[in-house]
Amino acid sequence: MIRPTHGGNVDWAVTLINCSPSAVLDFSASINPLGPPEKAIEAIIKGIKELDHYPNPDYPQFRLGIAKHHQIDQDLVLPSNGAAELLTWIAWEAHDLEGVMLPSPCFADYRRALNTFNIPCKFYDLEQLETGLSKGYNGALLINNPHNPTGKLWQKKTLLPYLQKFRLVIIDEAFMDFLLPNEQESLIDVVEDHDNLIILRSLTKFYSLPGLRIGYGVSNPDRIRKWQKWRDPWSVNNLAAIAGVKALSDFEFQQKTWQWLKPTRQKLRDDLSQIEGLKPLPSSANFMLVETRIPSSQLQLELLKREQILIRDCLSFPELGEKYFRVAVKKQEDNRKLTTTLADILTPQI
Amino acid sequence: MIRPTHGGNVDWAVTLINCSPSAVLDFSASINPLGPPEKAIEAIIKGIKELDHYPNPDYPQFRLGIAKHHQIDQDLVLPSNGAAELLTWIAWEAHDLEGVMLPSPCFADYRRALNTFNIPCKFYDLEQLETGLSKGYNGALLINNPHNPTGKLWQKKTLLPYLQKFRLVIIDEAFMDFLLPNEQESLIDVVEDHDNLIILRSLTKFYSLPGLRIGYGVSNPDRIRKWQKWRDPWSVNNLAAIAGVKALSDFEFQQKTWQWLKPTRQKLRDDLSQIEGLKPLPSSANFMLVETRIPSSQLQLELLKREQILIRDCLSFPELGEKYFRVAVKKQEDNRKLTTTLADILTPQI
Repeated sequence: MIRPTHGGNVDWAVTLINCSPSAVLDFSASINPLGPPEKAIEAIIKGIKELDHYPNPDYPQFRLGIAKHHQIDQDLVLPSNGAAELLTWIAWEAHDLEGVMLPSPCFADYRRALNTFNIPCKFYDLEQLETGLSKGYNGALLINNPHNPTGKLWQKKTLLPYLQKFRLVIIDEAFMDFLLPNEQESLIDVVEDHDNLIILRSLTKFYSLPGLRIGYGVSNPDRIRKWQKWRDPWSVNNLAAIAGVKALSDFEFQQKTWQWLKPTRQKLRDDLSQIEGLKPLPSSANFMLVETRIPSSQLQLELLKREQILIRDCLSFPELGEKYFRVAVKKQEDNRKLTTTLADILTPQI
Repeated sequence: MIRPTHGGNVDWAVTLINCSPSAVLDFSASINPLGPPEKAIEAIIKGIKELDHYPNPDYPQFRLGIAKHHQIDQDLVLPSNGAAELLTWIAWEAHDLEGVMLPSPCFADYRRALNTFNIPCKFYDLEQLETGLSKGYNGALLINNPHNPTGKLWQKKTLLPYLQKFRLVIIDEAFMDFLLPNEQESLIDVVEDHDNLIILRSLTKFYSLPGLRIGYGVSNPDRIRKWQKWRDPWSVNNLAAIAGVKALSDFEFQQKTWQWLKPTRQKLRDDLSQIEGLKPLPSSANFMLVETRIPSSQLQLELLKREQILIRDCLSFPELGEKYFRVAVKKQEDNRKLTTTLADILTPQI
């Protein structure tokens, strides 16, 4: 089996160490370990009887649920088959622009979507975005906030000026939910004032439902209507639409996640810092990028062999290569298993 | 609420007559009334625990299940988020051809996909396909076999010569499963010999799972790999992949469906023929097109008001307009309710 280009893939890992997928302790996908929310699962089970009819292409309930969650108009909202579906339409939206500027490093699926329609792309490094990207590019700007894989969060005031500078600004906020509401730096609340702004959100990570495929876009109503004409009318399955409504309104689950994440991430970072040869970066999300002296693919294999732990190598981020790996923040006991195993591997044997 | 352009939409119907969606007797969507298969539903329930991880973008089990079902190589197969997802990629595949020839009338989603990428289309009428479409079109040909909404089945020998005449031939076989194996006219078994052939299949209709979104494409391995690079890597949700395997191997369910359909469709056709002003067309699928003297939208409204019966008007097939409606073949008792209500409406009150 070929090493997957998109990063974490448990199926690939099990072929290496010959165990069952459920035996793998997966740090490679940045999924909330507290989920999925019970209310969403109950709604899915109850919703199975709804599989015998087509989705309503307008997804009225799900759309309303998203609009309520963000206190915006539902005409600004388009439910999607994961955020990845909308990356396809963003790329097609950009086909008559000069090109798209992407962060470096960036999520491999951005390039997948742009390559499909032969859209030129340029890369900027993260500091450039902070200090001010130079003008003179009559195209689109894609920003990932918080950024994957670094976990870096940009402030609204850093991003807002780019709405004047670029024809189209796309902000992928797939991990924004992990921040406390008063710490979030979402641009959703300015979508109504900026026709050239597109926000992408995902329910995959925060609500631990990557296998169900739920996301949405927020942009101006004309663009939303246009995309709806472009795309397959029934792209979101009925169970995703049902679970999505329940998840977004589950304030208790959201609270629990926020309470878990902050101290647990801090502890994981502290513990990783103690290990010789590792340097974890600060992160606003539920994952962490770690600089490593030993090549990450070597470390990955060793963790798999010793404790069936799967970390995310960074080979799909060519700028990072073997010098970094990414880990999800998981429950305390799992994080401890990761850090003690890493310490075992990396501490010099006298 | 605006009348949906894609045809049957129970949500739209209930706003007209003010009842619950489950109270509507839906003849508008051509879904097998014997399904979904219990084995598929059991697999979905068991599969809910798989929602916390991403699908494997290669969908190895589902792919293998499809390959086994058709006794073909799995490299020829691409699972999809319903057949509609693949219509998007078929359209993009055609963007450097002269255009695409479509049957008239045809399924509205063909035009949706082609319009998205501004692909020119021409229409042929069904008899032209039978007698031989004229040459001289350096583009693609799309065929729907059995054809929707007429239910007409083309023989393999009618279709095969078109593989020499057109750059690309797409055959949508979404309803082919409803024919007995020895009566099917599928071109799946010649895909290996024709690089320009694409077959579309759907599990939506035969296995009554329109809300889950399951379909697949069969074409040459190079095209399959290319599409996989183009599209969102996780477009098929885990439950669809799991249910798909179970459904395709459920021979008992397939048998039951074949035993039900033939006599039930014949009885429905006979009963409709008896009603003044209606003329049902012969069909090889699980639906039937009916010519009507009274405008179909008027009949549709009357059926909804009297018995909460929803038929499919043909306004999304502009060539048919008010002169036709389409009905699914449902269970005997439901069909009887339809025909007696139609008879009540249409029989002159002396």
